[in-house]
Amino acid sequence: MDYQDIRYEVSDRILTLTLNRPDRLNAWTLRMRDEMLHALARANEDDDIGVIVVTGAGRVFCAGMELEREEGNIFGYDIPQGENLNIEEIRDSGGELSLALYRSKKPLIAAINGAAVGVGITMTLPMDFRIAAEGAKIGFVFSQRGIVPEACSSWFLPRLVGMQAAMEWVLSGEIFSAEEGLEKGLFRSLAPKDDVLEAAYVLARKLMHKTSPVSLALARQMLWRNPSFEHPMQAHCVDSRLMYLTSERLDGRDGFQAFLEKRDPVFTAKVSESVPDQFTFWPEPPLS
Amino acid sequence: MDYQDIRYEVSDRILTLTLNRPDRLNAWTLRMRDEMLHALARANEDDDIGVIVVTGAGRVFCAGMELEREEGNIFGYDIPQGENLNIEEIRDSGGELSLALYRSKKPLIAAINGAAVGVGITMTLPMDFRIAAEGAKIGFVFSQRGIVPEACSSWFLPRLVGMQAAMEWVLSGEIFSAEEGLEKGLFRSLAPKDDVLEAAYVLARKLMHKTSPVSLALARQMLWRNPSFEHPMQAHCVDSRLMYLTSERLDGRDGFQAFLEKRDPVFTAKVSESVPDQFTFWPEPPLS
Amino acid sequence: MDYQDIRYEVSDRILTLTLNRPDRLNAWTLRMRDEMLHALARANEDDDIGVIVVTGAGRVFCAGMELEREEGNIFGYDIPQGENLNIEEIRDSGGELSLALYRSKKPLIAAINGAAVGVGITMTLPMDFRIAAEGAKIGFVFSQRGIVPEACSSWFLPRLVGMQAAMEWVLSGEIFSAEEGLEKGLFRSLAPKDDVLEAAYVLARKLMHKTSPVSLALARQMLWRNPSFEHPMQAHCVDSRLMYLTSERLDGRDGFQAFLEKRDPVFTAKVSESVPDQFTFWPEPPLS
Repeated sequence: MDYQDIRYEVSDRILTLTLNRPDRLNAWTLRMRDEMLHALARANEDDDIGVIVVTGAGRVFCAGMELEREEGNIFGYDIPQGENLNIEEIRDSGGELSLALYRSKKPLIAAINGAAVGVGITMTLPMDFRIAAEGAKIGFVFSQRGIVPEACSSWFLPRLVGMQAAMEWVLSGEIFSAEEGLEKGLFRSLAPKDDVLEAAYVLARKLMHKTSPVSLALARQMLWRNPSFEHPMQAHCVDSRLMYLTSERLDGRDGFQAFLEKRDPVFTAKVSESVPDQFTFWPEPPLS
Repeated sequence: MDYQDIRYEVSDRILTLTLNRPDRLNAWTLRMRDEMLHALARANEDDDIGVIVVTGAGRVFCAGMELEREEGNIFGYDIPQGENLNIEEIRDSGGELSLALYRSKKPLIAAINGAAVGVGITMTLPMDFRIAAEGAKIGFVFSQRGIVPEACSSWFLPRLVGMQAAMEWVLSGEIFSAEEGLEKGLFRSLAPKDDVLEAAYVLARKLMHKTSPVSLALARQMLWRNPSFEHPMQAHCVDSRLMYLTSERLDGRDGFQAFLEKRDPVFTAKVSESVPDQFTFWPEPPLS
Repeated sequence: MDYQDIRYEVSDRILTLTLNRPDRLNAWTLRMRDEMLHALARANEDDDIGVIVVTGAGRVFCAGMELEREEGNIFGYDIPQGENLNIEEIRDSGGELSLALYRSKKPLIAAINGAAVGVGITMTLPMDFRIAAEGAKIGFVFSQRGIVPEACSSWFLPRLVGMQAAMEWVLSGEIFSAEEGLEKGLFRSLAPKDDVLEAAYVLARKLMHKTSPVSLALARQMLWRNPSFEHPMQAHCVDSRLMYLTSERLDGRDGFQAFLEKRDPVFTAKVSESVPDQFTFWPEPPLS
């Protein structure tokens, strides 16, 4: 695929995905969705990528959905108006990205280099960490446009900041500062605008330091998916399988040996070979 | 219905519901339950109401359940003792209110003007925001009465303040200060006793400023209900339906147009007409 | 049972369970698991125990899994290598403890007197409160050993500290300080190393002060289990049963009477008689 609305750059085991429409404040397009989905699938298969950082070109992160659209198209969907459309098949494009981020086999860091509004902020919620520029303007502005929060943000946001802060931001639709976001737990940390990307790289290197890529892929899924189980028994069943798998057949073998021998472990298991796209204990519900 | 234990007052699109038994410290009665359920149903149907504020008459918010009851009645239930009662049909009256608050189509703000104890504090947990009077005494006192937390509070409280704070308040049954509640995330903010109601009105006006009432009704339900889904896919399916509905058929049409034209939008969709009492994607479990 | 790897001591209605292999930094063994499960079952049946405190002998709390194991055994399991093992039957031993803690009828306080690493920290997550020694080293080190988080920790940790902090600790596998744990909500409070146990006892006495043991047993289960319900309706059904049970048949009878008479209540209901091992409204999923 020939990327146009994003950039895809790998260096030192870090993939940097850059929303790349700076003249349009990186506004979200259906092409951007297609390219992000392609890039994430590609990264899952590439064992030379340890962590993914998502950032924006120019002075903002993402100003929201692109509003200047081709004549005659339904707003935000690639279905022509007037066609005999099946409402059941219409998909929120931000949510398609959120689901791909949720399923990612690599940890994800949002390097929010400037304003993040609408889908510009909701797309970062399924990422594992958000580092924002000091003073950046943030907004869940949907209620002021007459629409609703999207990109699965109502699933993710209360988990991150609690119900009271989530309600105030989403119901009011007001713009707030990165500083307020930090205080309420939306952001992991802030950095001066020009240092946000480097701060994300520092965190990426910390995550990769002496760790097993297979452990990262599995632990990331366990942390996102196991809390949804009704009872910790179900998490215990997952743990029992994955502890056996990793400790007896994958990187745990040298992990323990190296610890006993007081040397650094040599992790050789590959995410592309050892982490399936789907585990039976975490079923994917059907689209409806 | 002729309200006796509450007051129902609408002004500037804000409905103020006042627990109104000041000589009994606004203690909770079955009549108060009936009147609150009636008032909330009425507000759902009234498009002239944008936000609901709940407060107490006099110097406290609510001192808990009314303990001086009619002779011969089972405690806290309107079923006479000795009757051939069916335990399955007995309902916790605080929970009946909590469920009505949870389902409300209007955002809810608790203006906790003074002490809130027992059902006095648990009834506020399904409201979207709690503003408390500085120095107010708060208590989940159930364990000191030999009973258990009610009004669905074990469902709501850990979501608001985490498990560790919830456990300490509920197991010890001790009275704590509004200041401790603020620190742990129970309250959105505090205000001097005489300013609590005005602080709630300021927040109410912020929620209504330039926003679509239909967006508020839908977003409120999405934030409460979507996080219970096991997988964000299910939230995505809800988002896709409601984004299409609002952006193509309701207030999103002018919302986007106004934004492009740099003017304020004109939102005309009515909650009473466009927001059903129940959506198929959010089933209500049966009573059991 | 003759305890060897733990100590079991009851005083003033507090059971202190001490991980007792100080020369091995209280490293976790399968024998320790067996003894802890036995001790917890025994405590459930003993009405002279009000609260359980778990601590470590010597200068650390628990350094993780015992790595020096009998020749020829599979790592962390009591199944000999080479046997025709059934992977489905292999159980994570830390998770077996976590499930017993989750089901406990007595409130649990971890008195983390020093370093807590691997299963040393994950085993404390199902306890209701964690008080740690100032400066104690904490680590979810699994990714640096090539394995995954266990003991149901992926179910418990995000509930306690949110997703962002949970991800950073678990993915990086780094050691962090008790102070960072306090800041993120992992710990209820810190105390100087020599005062941790006494701080736990102060909290234990607070939980037992004027409270009903049956209320504590039931409220503890309600707070852990009810939030997993999809809808507060299901919590309401549980509340309705347990409010009726406690207020009409157990300690609520004197609890209310004493309150009206302005005297201390006399609670006589026994956990061993009135709190079953399992309630029908909280089914236990099968092992899989």
